[in-house]
Amino acid sequence: MVGNNNRLVKEKNESLIMEVIRKNREISKADIAKTTQLSANAISMITSSLIKNKYIHMCRIGESSGGRKPEILAIKPGTFYSLGIDIDTDGIRFAEVDLAGNVKEIKRLKMNCIRNADKAFGAIKKETARHKSEYFLGFGIAVAGQVDISSKRIVLAPNLKWSNINIADLIFDRADFYIENEAISSAIYESLNGICKDTDNFICINSKSGIGAGIFIDGRVYRGENGSAGEVGHIITDYYGLKCECGSFGCLETIAASHRIASMCGLPSIEYVVEKAESGDKRVLSVLKNVSKHMGIALVSIVNTLNPRKIILGKEFCLYGKLLIDDILSFVSKYSLPSSRNLEILISDAGDNASVLGAALLPQLRIFGK
Amino acid sequence: MVGNNNRLVKEKNESLIMEVIRKNREISKADIAKTTQLSANAISMITSSLIKNKYIHMCRIGESSGGRKPEILAIKPGTFYSLGIDIDTDGIRFAEVDLAGNVKEIKRLKMNCIRNADKAFGAIKKETARHKSEYFLGFGIAVAGQVDISSKRIVLAPNLKWSNINIADLIFDRADFYIENEAISSAIYESLNGICKDTDNFICINSKSGIGAGIFIDGRVYRGENGSAGEVGHIITDYYGLKCECGSFGCLETIAASHRIASMCGLPSIEYVVEKAESGDKRVLSVLKNVSKHMGIALVSIVNTLNPRKIILGKEFCLYGKLLIDDILSFVSKYSLPSSRNLEILISDAGDNASVLGAALLPQLRIFGK
Repeated sequence: MVGNNNRLVKEKNESLIMEVIRKNREISKADIAKTTQLSANAISMITSSLIKNKYIHMCRIGESSGGRKPEILAIKPGTFYSLGIDIDTDGIRFAEVDLAGNVKEIKRLKMNCIRNADKAFGAIKKETARHKSEYFLGFGIAVAGQVDISSKRIVLAPNLKWSNINIADLIFDRADFYIENEAISSAIYESLNGICKDTDNFICINSKSGIGAGIFIDGRVYRGENGSAGEVGHIITDYYGLKCECGSFGCLETIAASHRIASMCGLPSIEYVVEKAESGDKRVLSVLKNVSKHMGIALVSIVNTLNPRKIILGKEFCLYGKLLIDDILSFVSKYSLPSSRNLEILISDAGDNASVLGAALLPQLRIFGK
Repeated sequence: MVGNNNRLVKEKNESLIMEVIRKNREISKADIAKTTQLSANAISMITSSLIKNKYIHMCRIGESSGGRKPEILAIKPGTFYSLGIDIDTDGIRFAEVDLAGNVKEIKRLKMNCIRNADKAFGAIKKETARHKSEYFLGFGIAVAGQVDISSKRIVLAPNLKWSNINIADLIFDRADFYIENEAISSAIYESLNGICKDTDNFICINSKSGIGAGIFIDGRVYRGENGSAGEVGHIITDYYGLKCECGSFGCLETIAASHRIASMCGLPSIEYVVEKAESGDKRVLSVLKNVSKHMGIALVSIVNTLNPRKIILGKEFCLYGKLLIDDILSFVSKYSLPSSRNLEILISDAGDNASVLGAALLPQLRIFGK
């Protein structure tokens, strides 16, 4: 029991030190001691072991502040890595990310995944087959829908028309994988490596065929009572509006999901909407005004209820968000309570890759004690 | 430093044991050991000291399960106590509550508190003057509005028309007080002694002149980035609706705050609304149908975003909630996502006293490690 406890304490201190190094990017042992309150001796022992095992390295010699010049430590790039996989209706994305957060490769496989879980996981098996080295930490899968992260099941992915899928049944020769909702994956990316690094309370809202959110509260993912928190696409912004697939009326996504915007503009896809808007097409601009207003109504309700520090708009918002953002900002600033005055609403700077990059981080979280 | 650490550990273990006894109401030392993983020796020492200091007592001898009959411990009633104070536009409530959660007395002082902070705190000083015994834990003040609990300031109480009030300036001879938003006070009451005892994720929505919420997430109060989370009265349920005092349009409280309901019915107060509704008045019933619908729209947005286990309707809802609850329940069950199927929406069984009872708990929280 004592041995067990010691091992747990050691693991906890290891991940604490890994997290401090990650957050600071570069840090001396003396500064690790200041942050963690661990003894110099414990820090020396743990960092030596982490260096030996290639998790961290001495990246440079720092400036002396009187005594000996300090060794500066950083997460070792290019060694341990993991693979993110983002499954969407029209294809699968793969991203290799190392422990230092460097993205080695992002690639995209076009494929109709709707009703095709077998085919999608066939492609995933093929791609993952080449990742079996001792430095491979595993792969993380992001899906738009409700997932059960502990039993690694997709409960319901409405747009893919998948339900109750046990991923282990489809990838029967691997156990080194994790699963997450795609908006929560985006939020994990923004929290660790994106624009919410120093933010405890924020919401990532992703739009594509649906609109969903990943919510961070007091620095941690908030999933709700049944794991279905974040369904902000079903905030009712106009009860007298269109019928939604969920059975309700005037849900935000009946107006603001990408494919609904395209269809209201009479255009085949959101790319055409962007083109037409940029050429000043009046019908398209008027549809976008209305979309901004409904986004504004939903965001005011979210802001007044949750008082977050940041709201990040992601996924396909990154393609057309620039056409809406000014109107959304002015609506929210005009109609939300003044107590939220330091709120920032931003478009993700990872483009539409935040969720695949977040998926790649899932196998790394444990190492940083998350 | 070591001495300090030991004292901290001892205090932490004391409050851990107090919390375990409180949660279980009656418990043996053996069962405390099972729950806390503390050693039998430490538990004996701490419980002896707690008994000596009158925090707990041996309430009965339990049944033997083989060996000696166990002593059953409980929080000692009728000794340590605190005072809750709820300030509203039309008066002040006071509630004496002991450490075991027993309510000794609730009384109400009618008074116009609008713009009258000096007068209100004069009355509070008078009432609190008689509570100075060694067993008095302090008093807690609940106010509808934004408060800063650490500096003990009322930032903004719009209905009272109070702003930027440093309570210490008004009660200069006392330091044993705490302050909290009234909806959060209600939520604290429901969490400790009310209908959310075993619930981690829930929301208390209080209605009177405004509508505000106290949000519990993963077992703790959620305040948001600037302490203004929970302003659910400003969820926009009908953007084409009435102008709200906040400057926005169609906020929930423009339709569902008690005084708005009365005014839409052409009646002087909510008590008349209840009377007329019960006699079948058609105009009143039609106003209430509309109120239920807007409450439903707001609750669907909250439920789909936060996926709570329970929503508790409190304060003046307790007076007229029975006229709305069936319509609200059927709206939310029809239009929220099926993943929230174990959601319960309930009217507080503390009537409109939940916030003053919660205020009384504020000085007790530290004792239970909260």
